[in-house]
Amino acid sequence: MTTVAAYAAPAAKAPLERTTIERRVPGEHDVVIDIAFAGICHSDIHQVREGWGKAIFPMVPGHEIAGVVSRTGPGVTRFAAGDRVGVGCMVDSCRTCVNCRAGLEQYCSQGPVWTYNAVGKDGQPTYGGYSEQVVVDENYVVRVPDALPLDAAAPLLCAGITTYSPLRHWKAGPGKSVAVVGLGGLGHMAVQIAHALGAEVTVLSQSLRKKDDGLRLGADHYRATGDPATFTDHVGSLDIILNTVSAPLDFGAYFSLLRTDGSMVNLGLPEESVGIELQSLIGLRRSMSSSGIGGIAETQEMLDFCARHGVAAQIELIRADEINEAYERVLASDVRYRFVIDIATL
Amino acid sequence: MTTVAAYAAPAAKAPLERTTIERRVPGEHDVVIDIAFAGICHSDIHQVREGWGKAIFPMVPGHEIAGVVSRTGPGVTRFAAGDRVGVGCMVDSCRTCVNCRAGLEQYCSQGPVWTYNAVGKDGQPTYGGYSEQVVVDENYVVRVPDALPLDAAAPLLCAGITTYSPLRHWKAGPGKSVAVVGLGGLGHMAVQIAHALGAEVTVLSQSLRKKDDGLRLGADHYRATGDPATFTDHVGSLDIILNTVSAPLDFGAYFSLLRTDGSMVNLGLPEESVGIELQSLIGLRRSMSSSGIGGIAETQEMLDFCARHGVAAQIELIRADEINEAYERVLASDVRYRFVIDIATL
Repeated sequence: MTTVAAYAAPAAKAPLERTTIERRVPGEHDVVIDIAFAGICHSDIHQVREGWGKAIFPMVPGHEIAGVVSRTGPGVTRFAAGDRVGVGCMVDSCRTCVNCRAGLEQYCSQGPVWTYNAVGKDGQPTYGGYSEQVVVDENYVVRVPDALPLDAAAPLLCAGITTYSPLRHWKAGPGKSVAVVGLGGLGHMAVQIAHALGAEVTVLSQSLRKKDDGLRLGADHYRATGDPATFTDHVGSLDIILNTVSAPLDFGAYFSLLRTDGSMVNLGLPEESVGIELQSLIGLRRSMSSSGIGGIAETQEMLDFCARHGVAAQIELIRADEINEAYERVLASDVRYRFVIDIATL
Repeated sequence: MTTVAAYAAPAAKAPLERTTIERRVPGEHDVVIDIAFAGICHSDIHQVREGWGKAIFPMVPGHEIAGVVSRTGPGVTRFAAGDRVGVGCMVDSCRTCVNCRAGLEQYCSQGPVWTYNAVGKDGQPTYGGYSEQVVVDENYVVRVPDALPLDAAAPLLCAGITTYSPLRHWKAGPGKSVAVVGLGGLGHMAVQIAHALGAEVTVLSQSLRKKDDGLRLGADHYRATGDPATFTDHVGSLDIILNTVSAPLDFGAYFSLLRTDGSMVNLGLPEESVGIELQSLIGLRRSMSSSGIGGIAETQEMLDFCARHGVAAQIELIRADEINEAYERVLASDVRYRFVIDIATL
């Protein structure tokens, strides 16, 4: 075992503090990664505060991990010391179910082993990226292309793949019209990726406060959802709505913006109960769906795509001792657009 | 104008009674159809009772029409006197919008002209199939193959296409698992068509009362939704759920039966407000959707498919003076599985 520094929440809702954790001796297929940067995802906060149910403490959050391989197990074939790599939300899965075999490890029928707040196959709790080092099976590690800086690449491991995967699945591209609801951590990635895929992109945001950013990131249109004209001007015009907002919405109003066969895809997982009227979802064969991250091969595809198209997260780099303050700012939507922890400051 | 006998509701919620209506002189592209049979669809009752909003009276319901061409306008090229034909829910549409051009006239952006309870392009109210004759543009008339009896073919024009279209769109076929919720007019067609398409078919019904019928129609499994084991035995096993029931359901429970990428498709349009919890729809990229009838070309495709596979409605033939009683029996789910009016008794 190796003792490494980490930032952890000792209990639900408690502030995170510096501590140490143990990392396992690398097994046959393990990669030891010296973490350089870790993104702060809203879901870190949901879990630290037990917004999604009972959690495991102490908790070391972080599933947007970028770093460099320092050592490999004897059976590792895909990585070597010095490789720039990333780890996202999963560090293992059953590998045998129909979803794992289809490259949809995120929907593993046994449930994937999440990067933190979970129990690994060895029976030990998993600890995430707010730490100096992590040991991960090579099959759940992806390569960060040289064209991507490690700090701006870190958020791609969750925010990037969470938006790339549904945009690909629902076939965003030339001739398709995509709206992104909310311009936050997920939204600012969705806009860039949808634009790079060749789709016409509209941001639907509460206000026009971030309009300049949205247009700079690649949006063709930027409309305020508080303006009733938004919903009349765009009626029946969209193929895909990616909803990055967890708060309750007037789903019927958004649904009316979809074309025939259009899809509204929800990426957020609300803590509170959100009601929808079935009637508002009827008509034009439109669908309401959800999507969660993406598979491992698709995550690699996404990183390669981002490198090729010059897409990366817009980040605010922070020191480890600023994590708790950053959490408050995420909750206040006061970040453009992702906090990334410089692990060297741990 | 031609005066013909019909059964009409003189006002909302009033019983239907025998009357006469005027049919237009056939225009250039019109087909005059001597109606032989008209199916009774649950939506006839919704509309007569203004369950879906304000309606036009007197109302002659009926959009499951089968008959024989008696005369054609000079420009008609596709039909001739003596042809066995059908008319479904639409008698016209704009013909120029993106949906009409794609063969999705049912989603015409101007709204199709419905067969009854609507206003035609000539500004006159449309009257449906509970009448001796109807005059329809040839582009909204389909051919009934010789292998299909006219009486059992009539319900295909709504119940058949309403289930065939989503089964095709969501790709029911060999290796796919389809559940049909409710074994009524729509459900009994869905079972036969899904079976003929080669899918594995499960009926989910309130009770096992109609189990023998369901299996005879082609279902592989028949489960009662009142039995909690139904929802544990079939969890994560279905690709498509066709919901033919308008009443509120526990959508989350049905959703949990879907596989990754599975779709729950709602065919009924409830009169009352039906709430769904967004949380219950999250996971495995499953989707909630709806579907309404089908396009004209697809309706012809469906009739040809049914003729080829020996699929038709199971009907109870009634006299015109039994319509009001039949309505009560439909509301009590006391029909196996479609009432068809013998128009000769008008």
